[in-house]
Amino acid sequence: MTWLDLADDTPFGLENLPYGAFSIAGALERRIGVPLGDHVLDLTAAAEETAAPFAPLLTAGVLNPLLAAGPDTWREVRETLRNWLTEPRYADQLRPHLHPLTEVTTHLAFEVADYVDFYSSEQHALNAGRIFRPDAAELPPNWKHLPIAYHGRAGTVVASGTPVVRPHGQRKPRTADAPSFGPSQRLDIEAEVGFVVGVPGTRVSTADFADHVFGVCLVNDWSARDIQAWESQPLGPFLGKSFATSVSPWIVPLAALDHARVDGPPQDPEPLEYLRTTEKWGLDLAIEVRLNGHLVSSPPFATQYWTAPQQLAHLTVNGAGLRTGDLFASGTVTGPDRDQRGSFLELSWGGREPLDLPDGRTRTFLEDGDEVAISATAPGPGGTRIGFGEVRGTVVPG
Amino acid sequence: MTWLDLADDTPFGLENLPYGAFSIAGALERRIGVPLGDHVLDLTAAAEETAAPFAPLLTAGVLNPLLAAGPDTWREVRETLRNWLTEPRYADQLRPHLHPLTEVTTHLAFEVADYVDFYSSEQHALNAGRIFRPDAAELPPNWKHLPIAYHGRAGTVVASGTPVVRPHGQRKPRTADAPSFGPSQRLDIEAEVGFVVGVPGTRVSTADFADHVFGVCLVNDWSARDIQAWESQPLGPFLGKSFATSVSPWIVPLAALDHARVDGPPQDPEPLEYLRTTEKWGLDLAIEVRLNGHLVSSPPFATQYWTAPQQLAHLTVNGAGLRTGDLFASGTVTGPDRDQRGSFLELSWGGREPLDLPDGRTRTFLEDGDEVAISATAPGPGGTRIGFGEVRGTVVPG
Repeated sequence: MTWLDLADDTPFGLENLPYGAFSIAGALERRIGVPLGDHVLDLTAAAEETAAPFAPLLTAGVLNPLLAAGPDTWREVRETLRNWLTEPRYADQLRPHLHPLTEVTTHLAFEVADYVDFYSSEQHALNAGRIFRPDAAELPPNWKHLPIAYHGRAGTVVASGTPVVRPHGQRKPRTADAPSFGPSQRLDIEAEVGFVVGVPGTRVSTADFADHVFGVCLVNDWSARDIQAWESQPLGPFLGKSFATSVSPWIVPLAALDHARVDGPPQDPEPLEYLRTTEKWGLDLAIEVRLNGHLVSSPPFATQYWTAPQQLAHLTVNGAGLRTGDLFASGTVTGPDRDQRGSFLELSWGGREPLDLPDGRTRTFLEDGDEVAISATAPGPGGTRIGFGEVRGTVVPG
Repeated sequence: MTWLDLADDTPFGLENLPYGAFSIAGALERRIGVPLGDHVLDLTAAAEETAAPFAPLLTAGVLNPLLAAGPDTWREVRETLRNWLTEPRYADQLRPHLHPLTEVTTHLAFEVADYVDFYSSEQHALNAGRIFRPDAAELPPNWKHLPIAYHGRAGTVVASGTPVVRPHGQRKPRTADAPSFGPSQRLDIEAEVGFVVGVPGTRVSTADFADHVFGVCLVNDWSARDIQAWESQPLGPFLGKSFATSVSPWIVPLAALDHARVDGPPQDPEPLEYLRTTEKWGLDLAIEVRLNGHLVSSPPFATQYWTAPQQLAHLTVNGAGLRTGDLFASGTVTGPDRDQRGSFLELSWGGREPLDLPDGRTRTFLEDGDEVAISATAPGPGGTRIGFGEVRGTVVPG
């Protein structure tokens, strides 16, 4: 099938072909790459050498020019890649552009325009309501009518591997008379899935989703729960979220996810017309959250109530325009079981039920030195798995 | 004083010298300009012709390179401008670069990185609380401890003059069982003052404000109150704000505002240490809001509870980094009197007290065809006024 030496079960096989930005050890220049097994193909160099028509889109060190080029070009690049990798005559030409993944550094794959974070897992919304607002209705009254979202800080979206400095801020425990200032004592993660916009537009119907969205990545929306709880009324989260949002290095194109597409859960009440869908855009991603190497949660993305085309239709229905590089994320992904919760807020039930770790220690919220890695795979054709790689970050003191 | 023919009472005199982006009638190219009386000086051309060392900062069609250059360069450009305009020997050289303001088109002066909107007028927060949450405390418990804010949509910050398309969205009156979809019936303005970040940084102390912030503009944060009311719980405003935010063409440098600086109102309780200030950074801006040419409100900016250095210190205290082009706005500016309210929400008290217009008509929220213009001036030296120009927009049907 391919002249590459790829393991059958590699998450980065010919059915995946995600894109990212990387630099070769010791070099400053950022290049566009495609991971293949345990190597990365320098797509910038390969396109230049083969005089591919899309080569000029790959010289910016970020994916934005490719994102902006649109679905026809995305297909063309993907078909070219598969042709290169299956035709033996390209082997000698391309082999020099394959670098071991261990010898490259990955970077933020795209320049982020606006960053929007949704709140679309029903189980997460139920859990957050029970923990934060025990006296209120379990779900806000609007929750099943629209995919709730807010704008996050695009300037602090960072590459996987960037250390996460524990934020300082105001916290006020319910029992205190006044707030105090200091390092967050309730630093948390949110395991999310992000969607990367390629083609600008507005009032994007659910049917036009794939004409605008290029691909999918993993997002860790780090959250300081104590800062967030004190600041959020009445305008929502701000400093409790804006210190860092980490994204995975490789953007998996929608075309790689054909076998992962499933129906979303039934929606009752039926959504307003602009939120209705005919195509399946639930995605059967199996997410895994690891703390210091220990698997602590396996959130199932297929349980999300609102799908990405519904989120995009909602985001743009008021006339707001999209820009190339817009990122919108799913919100915390949480399933019904305890070991499917996508945040430590939920895993420790607001800090009241510490989580036992396999090394005999316990955890409520994150401690300095903790490393969190979120990874995911999705079904590919013929029993293969499509890998999303991982988004990783280590907490360092502020 | 100057070889220019300037009226004594011009809002664009030698003590002002704000910066913006413009194009000359019929041309596509965007240039950096400085309004002087009823003309604009093409600073890009003038700097090139005089071989000014800062000329390369003025060729991008937006202010961002100048913003990023920092306070020493900002001073140098301002001193050079004053030298040019006061030394008669420059007159012949510069006159060809003066264009009547009526013959140019102004554009968005800078590329917006992140957009943050505060909520820092005590009277506005009181009014909003009384109108939206009549059963709750008048101010949220956190309000006097921190300047509340949220992130807005940077991609829909638009130049003054851009038509504002009435947004569609979900609205649910309290008496309805379910939301319906349609054009906003409560389209509103928010008269605000915006601060433009030049120099990146993080944990910016209140004392370092002027090392990072370049200047000040006017902002109209258009708001669809019915969409906002239904969507905002629990994560704050989203589509009710994200369709358009208009900004004025000219960015007034902080250096032009020395005579406008006043003490902010007394703060009780005393803020936490990172929010304390020693310098005066209240700003005595007299704002005017006009609807279809009629003056409907005169919000006094000097009454703002939280000042811009406090807002910037708060925004960055959690470690969030600033980027060149970040914009943070004051929130609606509202004074204690009815004719000092910076939104129609307040002017019409939630729609219950229609506003009488001088033409015999009334208004609660905005109708299609309505034009809103927000202008401001501030005290300059020797009885002069520093003009901010205006931010203007006309509502068109969606």
